[in-house]
Amino acid sequence: MAIGVIATLTIQEGKNSEFEAMFAGLAEKVLANEPGVNFYALHQSKSDPQVYKVLEQYKDKGALGLHGKTDYFQAASKAFANYVIKAPDIELLKAV
Amino acid sequence: MAIGVIATLTIQEGKNSEFEAMFAGLAEKVLANEPGVNFYALHQSKSDPQVYKVLEQYKDKGALGLHGKTDYFQAASKAFANYVIKAPDIELLKAV
Repeated sequence: MAIGVIATLTIQEGKNSEFEAMFAGLAEKVLANEPGVNFYALHQSKSDPQVYKVLEQYKDKGALGLHGKTDYFQAASKAFANYVIKAPDIELLKAV
Repeated sequence: MAIGVIATLTIQEGKNSEFEAMFAGLAEKVLANEPGVNFYALHQSKSDPQVYKVLEQYKDKGALGLHGKTDYFQAASKAFANYVIKAPDIELLKAV
């Protein structure tokens, strides 16, 4: 069963460009190395430019687990901690 | 610039299967006929099984406009009105 994710990140003012550039590097690696990822796409809120939502889908639980264990994801997570103003909100969804 | 959408639909109890089957028919048509759609995927909330979120991405504003104008989307929208308990919540996002 595929799994959807909406990951919401709230970024410090003035850090948008740096965050977006770092995320682009992460997304490139995810899409190049993880065949279990159906989509993985960063979006910015229209009402609050500090709020970003990553729309993600994984083929199954294994693919989601693998994603979290990659060295590039773990490095990016540590780096993002310098840009967010609070812990990301991660909503897991059941693909239908 | 690509556009993301999170469409949240809250479905009447007992109508889940019917709604899911109808949505599957719609999604099949969207993916077969709209090259401007990057992804279009139905998900169910884990905390409330009556809540569904469609994660969508369009290549540009034109592709989103075209989607809304197709005869199958307009027919599906009318049909969904019989299943939802309130108007869908549509969040538009700027793809980064």
